Amino acid sequence: MYTKIHIGVIGAGTCSSEIYHQANEVGYLIGKNEWTLFCGGLGGVMEGAAKGCYQSGGLTVGILPGKEKDSANPFIRLAIATGLGEGRNLLVVRASDVVVAIAGSYGTLSEIGLALKIGKPVIGLKTWPGIEGVNYAETPEQVINRVVKYLSKCLP
Amino acid sequence: MYTKIHIGVIGAGTCSSEIYHQANEVGYLIGKNEWTLFCGGLGGVMEGAAKGCYQSGGLTVGILPGKEKDSANPFIRLAIATGLGEGRNLLVVRASDVVVAIAGSYGTLSEIGLALKIGKPVIGLKTWPGIEGVNYAETPEQVINRVVKYLSKCLP
Amino acid sequence: MYTKIHIGVIGAGTCSSEIYHQANEVGYLIGKNEWTLFCGGLGGVMEGAAKGCYQSGGLTVGILPGKEKDSANPFIRLAIATGLGEGRNLLVVRASDVVVAIAGSYGTLSEIGLALKIGKPVIGLKTWPGIEGVNYAETPEQVINRVVKYLSKCLP
Amino acid sequence: MYTKIHIGVIGAGTCSSEIYHQANEVGYLIGKNEWTLFCGGLGGVMEGAAKGCYQSGGLTVGILPGKEKDSANPFIRLAIATGLGEGRNLLVVRASDVVVAIAGSYGTLSEIGLALKIGKPVIGLKTWPGIEGVNYAETPEQVINRVVKYLSKCLP
Repeated sequence: MYTKIHIGVIGAGTCSSEIYHQANEVGYLIGKNEWTLFCGGLGGVMEGAAKGCYQSGGLTVGILPGKEKDSANPFIRLAIATGLGEGRNLLVVRASDVVVAIAGSYGTLSEIGLALKIGKPVIGLKTWPGIEGVNYAETPEQVINRVVKYLSKCLP
Repeated sequence: MYTKIHIGVIGAGTCSSEIYHQANEVGYLIGKNEWTLFCGGLGGVMEGAAKGCYQSGGLTVGILPGKEKDSANPFIRLAIATGLGEGRNLLVVRASDVVVAIAGSYGTLSEIGLALKIGKPVIGLKTWPGIEGVNYAETPEQVINRVVKYLSKCLP
Repeated sequence: MYTKIHIGVIGAGTCSSEIYHQANEVGYLIGKNEWTLFCGGLGGVMEGAAKGCYQSGGLTVGILPGKEKDSANPFIRLAIATGLGEGRNLLVVRASDVVVAIAGSYGTLSEIGLALKIGKPVIGLKTWPGIEGVNYAETPEQVINRVVKYLSKCLP
Repeated sequence: MYTKIHIGVIGAGTCSSEIYHQANEVGYLIGKNEWTLFCGGLGGVMEGAAKGCYQSGGLTVGILPGKEKDSANPFIRLAIATGLGEGRNLLVVRASDVVVAIAGSYGTLSEIGLALKIGKPVIGLKTWPGIEGVNYAETPEQVINRVVKYLSKCLP
């Protein structure tokens, strides 16, 4: 049903409907590829991506800041409550093979920094501009093409 | 394929074959009930339980202490690398609705303490004796009966 | 003013006045020896020990579960807010050279387990009985004598 | 000897001698103001700042990624080993009233993001440019003037 490839999608808990739609497409393609989606489990970009992945039959994992798994959005199949607050950001990044940053604010900036620090590839879509090391894409399809490229390098 | 009920199994990374067998039975019954198994993802009790759950078709989640998901035992379907060392013990407990402690040493003792501290039901099987608050069972079947009892109380 | 020796005192956030008094004596002797006291920064045993250490001029460090340093008891000189909830228990233990467990409930049990798991000496005073590996003492003076004994082994 | 004001200095573990010198000046002024310095406890900017603060008599706290307090630089008076790896970045930021970012790479970027996310003022000195919300200064003296300004707003 799903492979052992983990794609993290990071982004803010609130977003415009345009960004939600793009996150949704990214998520849809993640599920279609039978990859597992990791995210922070809440609203906005996290929900858009989870909804898309859920719709294409993928496994959606939400690493929640709070103590209760009920706080996950309805498209999270596996909600993991951590009680660590912002400390959970590192977990989303650590658990992922490739990280996709979509739009986002300071939390997303911190996750981009953490991902690059620990050596994870980061693909950016309409996110913080001009960060050396981020691979910027223009569309959800481009995001997925670049994920495939990274995976082909690190997987046997 | 699986419900949103999370059962944590805690125990040491090495164990006797008798304990492995019992963990295996507990895991088998967890999967058969379509619950999701959470554990620390390594060997011993964690592997025994994951193997059983895997065999009965359940989802097995391993919350790993290290930074690489490859360190999980082969029966973990979803390996989550945390890089938090012993800090991951709290995550296993926090993510679970009910915790089952099987045999185990100091790490297990710490998880029993954490689970009781944060208000999770703990069922013990051949583990640290005499801890007030632990619900001691004698067999894997008894463990599962008690899990059912706890779930019937907290689920609608 | 203080040495680089860290003594952790663990125990519950509420306690009897007798236990408070004993924690106070342990803390007083820690400060007198110019060791630094680490604790969870809140009330009960943590406050009793911090008060004693403060009174004898020692440095008192409180590793707090919450996000605000104002939540520390008034005898904490250095309050470190973590926002990690129970996750901070591991930090108290990790930061200490020797851990002293005084009375306590489930949180203390988890810290005893964590300390033994990661190889820290644990001295117990009226705490969870019968845990192999805990060095049980009867009085605050005995606690300190045993701390000295451990330190003489591991320090040059 | 020192007040309860905590100033975090973040920056990379290796740096040019010019940056080291500037970090050193920032640290010196922190100590002179009797504030407590928080940092990651290792080399580079962390060492430069700790050395300066140590020289002016301030308390220097190092929140270390590893498990042993011996890994701290020699100017850290209070070394706190966490064993959390990059997870300790959040702790440096959380423990601080104001955060000063000096030069730095991805780890520093993540800490800037975390600090802004959780509402801490961030003063930047020759660090990641163009981040909305960062208060950029040109010299160590300017950094300290801005710290004073922030403190005057939030302290009674």
